[in-house]
Amino acid sequence: MTEPVEIERKFLVVGQSWREGAEVDLLSQGYLPTTDECSVRVRIIGERAYLTIKGPTIEGARAEFEYPVPLAHARSMLHQFCQGRMIAKRRYSLRHGGRLWTVDAFEGALAGLLLAEVELDHVGQEVDLPPWLGREVTDDPRYLNSALAEATAPPED
Amino acid sequence: MTEPVEIERKFLVVGQSWREGAEVDLLSQGYLPTTDECSVRVRIIGERAYLTIKGPTIEGARAEFEYPVPLAHARSMLHQFCQGRMIAKRRYSLRHGGRLWTVDAFEGALAGLLLAEVELDHVGQEVDLPPWLGREVTDDPRYLNSALAEATAPPED
Repeated sequence: MTEPVEIERKFLVVGQSWREGAEVDLLSQGYLPTTDECSVRVRIIGERAYLTIKGPTIEGARAEFEYPVPLAHARSMLHQFCQGRMIAKRRYSLRHGGRLWTVDAFEGALAGLLLAEVELDHVGQEVDLPPWLGREVTDDPRYLNSALAEATAPPED
Repeated sequence: MTEPVEIERKFLVVGQSWREGAEVDLLSQGYLPTTDECSVRVRIIGERAYLTIKGPTIEGARAEFEYPVPLAHARSMLHQFCQGRMIAKRRYSLRHGGRLWTVDAFEGALAGLLLAEVELDHVGQEVDLPPWLGREVTDDPRYLNSALAEATAPPED
């Protein structure tokens, strides 16, 4: 069997030059109350919705199981189970160096926070870093979306 | 929208007369590490697998969101996320008084425990109780499957 895993790098963002030509989606997501061992995320992106189970990051990779769910179910789960653990953000998608990058612009309590992410095919893969990247935060647990969902302000450097 | 809810009554079982004519399935299920607010269950029944989110029981009803998942995903989630929170049982299905009843015969640490369940269409619905029912445990939190999954022996009366 192919084990579904997520391998990604995550960076702060400087400047605005990444915005040019990027596509944007509105994301609303929340987390069920789990322990640190895994996260259970409900995400609405446009008119589509997903339930996603993620394990802890181990040596740069993370098990990820994602399933589409009816939009009405997702809204109900967010309302019933995710109060106080929600994130709203705009996701900008763009290509750089042959890879898909996303820049998430957070809203609400985290307004002003910009996080860039790129998914890799394997741990340690070389990737062409765009010039608008700031500090890498891949291994900083404060920038996990599940942690940000409970934060009252962007993490301070 | 129709809100998916589960309304059920749960009983201990006396005697063996319920076994006659019942169909049996092997169930293996585990729980992701969540708080008491909700449960996230991974279940394998025969060759099928499901991911199920349930809320707390409020006035006899419980929100329930269930999705089929690939068998290999379920096996992997049970292995990665549910150690120490697993249940194996045989589920006997039978009809009584025009309704579907199940009797779960637990294995492993809970061997000997038998729990009968019936699903209702609405809270307070009249239901014909079969003669092999013992004490009702609908509101006893020790008999929640998510609690039993962490128990080292059947609850004592």
